[in-house]
Amino acid sequence: MGNYAFGVDIGGTTVKMGLFDREGCVLDKWEIPTVKDNEGASVLPDVAQSILAKMKEKNLELDDLEGIGIGVPGAVDKEGNLVNGAVNIGWKSFNIPKVMNAYINVPVKAANDANSAAFGEMWQGGGKGYTNMVAVTLGTGVGGGIIVNGEIVTGVTGAAGEIGHIHIEDGETDICGCGNRGCLEQYASATGVVRLAKRRLAQDDKPSVLREGSLTAKTVFDAVKDGDEVAVEIAERFGSYLGKGLAAVANVVNPEVFVIGGGVSKAGEILMDFIEPELQKYVFPASRNVKLALAQLGNDAGIYGAAGLILCEV
Amino acid sequence: MGNYAFGVDIGGTTVKMGLFDREGCVLDKWEIPTVKDNEGASVLPDVAQSILAKMKEKNLELDDLEGIGIGVPGAVDKEGNLVNGAVNIGWKSFNIPKVMNAYINVPVKAANDANSAAFGEMWQGGGKGYTNMVAVTLGTGVGGGIIVNGEIVTGVTGAAGEIGHIHIEDGETDICGCGNRGCLEQYASATGVVRLAKRRLAQDDKPSVLREGSLTAKTVFDAVKDGDEVAVEIAERFGSYLGKGLAAVANVVNPEVFVIGGGVSKAGEILMDFIEPELQKYVFPASRNVKLALAQLGNDAGIYGAAGLILCEV
Repeated sequence: MGNYAFGVDIGGTTVKMGLFDREGCVLDKWEIPTVKDNEGASVLPDVAQSILAKMKEKNLELDDLEGIGIGVPGAVDKEGNLVNGAVNIGWKSFNIPKVMNAYINVPVKAANDANSAAFGEMWQGGGKGYTNMVAVTLGTGVGGGIIVNGEIVTGVTGAAGEIGHIHIEDGETDICGCGNRGCLEQYASATGVVRLAKRRLAQDDKPSVLREGSLTAKTVFDAVKDGDEVAVEIAERFGSYLGKGLAAVANVVNPEVFVIGGGVSKAGEILMDFIEPELQKYVFPASRNVKLALAQLGNDAGIYGAAGLILCEV
Repeated sequence: MGNYAFGVDIGGTTVKMGLFDREGCVLDKWEIPTVKDNEGASVLPDVAQSILAKMKEKNLELDDLEGIGIGVPGAVDKEGNLVNGAVNIGWKSFNIPKVMNAYINVPVKAANDANSAAFGEMWQGGGKGYTNMVAVTLGTGVGGGIIVNGEIVTGVTGAAGEIGHIHIEDGETDICGCGNRGCLEQYASATGVVRLAKRRLAQDDKPSVLREGSLTAKTVFDAVKDGDEVAVEIAERFGSYLGKGLAAVANVVNPEVFVIGGGVSKAGEILMDFIEPELQKYVFPASRNVKLALAQLGNDAGIYGAAGLILCEV
């Protein structure tokens, strides 16, 4: 049994990599470019070469390695098979551990990158100490990662945790990226907050700092912190939608904690003031003890989670 | 390894019991009264006596038994501990296998009764052949049982699967049994269908057979089958709410199948005509292959599921 693992987070532009010890400390982290030519055929060989070079640098033998965890931008089944390919990096479907083992013969576990990031937050981030957790990523869209008893719930087509597409508003006229109307993502993502802001500002002429300069989720929540009344109204709408959506999620899996990450979460604890009361209003009473926490690992969540697939003992 | 198991479903009035073989066939089933005196102290001893008597009758030795599964009306943790008591039968919290083993020393597994019934439908009922399933019970209320990779998801306080309390209607003025407003249960349960019917009938004077005689979920769906236009409108409302709610559930756990049971489900396949299009309208595209099936075990789901806790190999 080795004392180290590599965590690999394959993105469309770069592959993030980290060397972790059993306690979950990252000993080194670095990036290599993602070479997408030839259906991404060199991505895994490049990863393997980079790991072998790092092992040499650190004087690590194969026996020192517990394994390699890999987060990939596509659906992965329990056996580590990529289910529907990964279009962003040109991959078709194949068995990831099998391909990796041609280069480095240690245990390899693969997972979807969003789920891997969720797992990282459970292992060493905002969800540390919990084993029933839902990660909520408020970025360009709204993503989710469901963890039950310390295990990632992938769903049958890898679509578990698509909480951004819970229908939350009957009156919506705009179409969501998924083709439906009224999805949570249309109100609680970074772009959703801007949509809410534009709609609110168009309603009347009430003064607001948001009427000048650029309109982003950041400027909205900055204005909230400055007490801007219009911004507070926008944040209340945001909180109402998100609280309602998270209540639905809690009524399905009854988690201990929601860990909120992604760009919008950089607003910090003030987010909770708007989400918490609405979550409490709509959730089933026996699930009211669910906590809200901020994600802590930022862009490193993926490498933590990938290493955690190997090292985390729940 | 024994070839038989007993499935026990403890209710507020009677305890249902069944003897099952490894193939999931019920070889015998019977009931005993639930004696609730003294905080239900004699319930488990009564169950044990009844099992021992049945074993004698069938010439079964302890070695023939793989174990005993027990569904109880309360939240049960993974270890078989009753978490918050079971108020309907007077039970406080205790370790169910430990108490049972004082009478019969075979493996004992306990689960919440609704979850046990869901598990039964997966093992031998409408969800047979699937391992990722959500059981939906449309009875007096709306209940749910979540099964992921062949295992029941209980949640941290046993409140997973409370899908009847997903908030689905902002405009609701009536209060749900849980204290919230606009819960799925207020529209998709047997009483919910009657509420929808009363509201629709009060809207105008459009002729309908539902204006005469008693108004129940059964009379509503019987009228639907007879082509009653008002009844069809009511069923469409029911289907819209339920489809929307199930879409939210599918977006969280991405199951293979929803198995619909409970009194309302006696209306049969016609229910699906109203649920399916609405589910498809609101669910995330990657989850659209989720199936709808009718529960098949009726009131026996609990004993099947309890026995399945012991015998089912996923």
